[in-house]
Amino acid sequence: MRQGLRLGVDLGGTQVKMALVDHRGRLAAQAAVETVKNPRRLVAAMKAAAQVWFHKRLLGTGVGVAGDIDSARGVVRVSPNLGWRNVPLKKMLKSAGFPQPLFIDNDANAAAWGAFHVELKGKSDDLVVLTLGTGVGGGVVLKGHLLHGVTGSAAELGHMNVDPRGLRCSCGNLGCLETFLGKDYLLASARREWARRGRRWPKGMTPFHLAQIARRGDAAAKAVWARAGSALGVGLGNLINIFNPDTILLCGGIAGASGLLLRSAAPGIRRAFATPRRAARIRVAANTRHLGVVGAALLVE
Amino acid sequence: MRQGLRLGVDLGGTQVKMALVDHRGRLAAQAAVETVKNPRRLVAAMKAAAQVWFHKRLLGTGVGVAGDIDSARGVVRVSPNLGWRNVPLKKMLKSAGFPQPLFIDNDANAAAWGAFHVELKGKSDDLVVLTLGTGVGGGVVLKGHLLHGVTGSAAELGHMNVDPRGLRCSCGNLGCLETFLGKDYLLASARREWARRGRRWPKGMTPFHLAQIARRGDAAAKAVWARAGSALGVGLGNLINIFNPDTILLCGGIAGASGLLLRSAAPGIRRAFATPRRAARIRVAANTRHLGVVGAALLVE
Repeated sequence: MRQGLRLGVDLGGTQVKMALVDHRGRLAAQAAVETVKNPRRLVAAMKAAAQVWFHKRLLGTGVGVAGDIDSARGVVRVSPNLGWRNVPLKKMLKSAGFPQPLFIDNDANAAAWGAFHVELKGKSDDLVVLTLGTGVGGGVVLKGHLLHGVTGSAAELGHMNVDPRGLRCSCGNLGCLETFLGKDYLLASARREWARRGRRWPKGMTPFHLAQIARRGDAAAKAVWARAGSALGVGLGNLINIFNPDTILLCGGIAGASGLLLRSAAPGIRRAFATPRRAARIRVAANTRHLGVVGAALLVE
Repeated sequence: MRQGLRLGVDLGGTQVKMALVDHRGRLAAQAAVETVKNPRRLVAAMKAAAQVWFHKRLLGTGVGVAGDIDSARGVVRVSPNLGWRNVPLKKMLKSAGFPQPLFIDNDANAAAWGAFHVELKGKSDDLVVLTLGTGVGGGVVLKGHLLHGVTGSAAELGHMNVDPRGLRCSCGNLGCLETFLGKDYLLASARREWARRGRRWPKGMTPFHLAQIARRGDAAAKAVWARAGSALGVGLGNLINIFNPDTILLCGGIAGASGLLLRSAAPGIRRAFATPRRAARIRVAANTRHLGVVGAALLVE
């Protein structure tokens, strides 16, 4: 990674985070704008907030976007969060004067790339990253390279099937890992658990609260995390058998409940073969707050 | 791939196939010996059959073995078929005078490597291979490199979980892809289907016969293949979302029934995201008979 600053952009459904990031992944400056769905207006707003930086000798710009990204051409094929289809983001940012070269990638890939450099300091031969948040994303770094596949769509680990008779996922299918661990699914699962026990569902419940009360011994909350953890375990067992990584890193808001999750994940993890299982450390990212924007910036190598 | 002959060895549970193989994967000579479980005696028998070739200017020796292989050190960690634990096969073959350099790898990795070079003539950026036989093996070739992971245990695709409430697999776990597609599981599934329908189970039934009668319209046989195909579909959908390959290749004896399998696999394949799904060709290997020994030989690049 060359010394110097690059511009990182984490283009989310509600907010665009931007930052100047150095080669070690440290933030030198930050800005944010609200997300508007019109691509032209959004790029204009991003430029207005970031162009104060354009005069610096930046090494380039990296952008992470949730969705199906053609990273080779810099096109957002589909982003359900943004309601975008075939938006030539790279071209638009180039026209707007964003520092070149420009790299566009899936947000979970960017987070995995950031985790590889910042959390693991590049010291992983084969790394699998799960981002646990509203959705469940994935990124895989093999021998120092992001796994992209042939259309840039690889590592959609959240849509690995862990139960063919499971719930319908936002992606249209049944029983994806995301239907057990995505924020809204988790809360829906809790709500059903509360109903089953004839308990009143408290307003404003969040995964954070759900973890708190589970830790204090609440049986319903514990059952919810156990179910989610058990599915996570099946997913982790698969990932160990498939990639034989030295590290699986859990990131994102829900990873804060990893203690609760991993307890129930143990049987699933034990499904993996002994040698790769022993070789795989399962870790929780220490600081996931800026991983998206930092990882995006570090796409500029 | 350099021109010239290499020695390929497919070390199976009942037979050791050996062959001289050229850079295009063509066989120049063949030999076979019966498998004996004692490693010393086996290497001696292999040497007796192959040493007539040792005087030629061979480029090296490649060996495929079923099991958990430490390909970096050339050690067979565990091979259930052979009843081996920590057998330093590379060292033993070297002492016996087998042509150097020597490469030892998992048999499905070797088959995938052979398929990459022979079936696809090296024309695949990201290739996933499933070997459907007694067991279900996997091999993955990304940008021209076999996926090994950190201990050489990667790509155990047959032990991906496709049903957490499924049958117990030989690996000890529940609902692996192998429990739907492995030869013995398939026949056991057929046997249960026959019993359910009050039919007498015919002696000497094989997957080949089972496919024949299914093609002729036998409802019980069709149900068996439909169940297996449906699980295969879940696995293929996962592999498309995980690797985003240009090709998934089905090899091995059971792949002969791929017409029957893929029909029922379609819903599972449709679980994958649209872009990677459209990018992935699912193919059946044209000639899988020698893929193991050829792929092993081509480990010598």
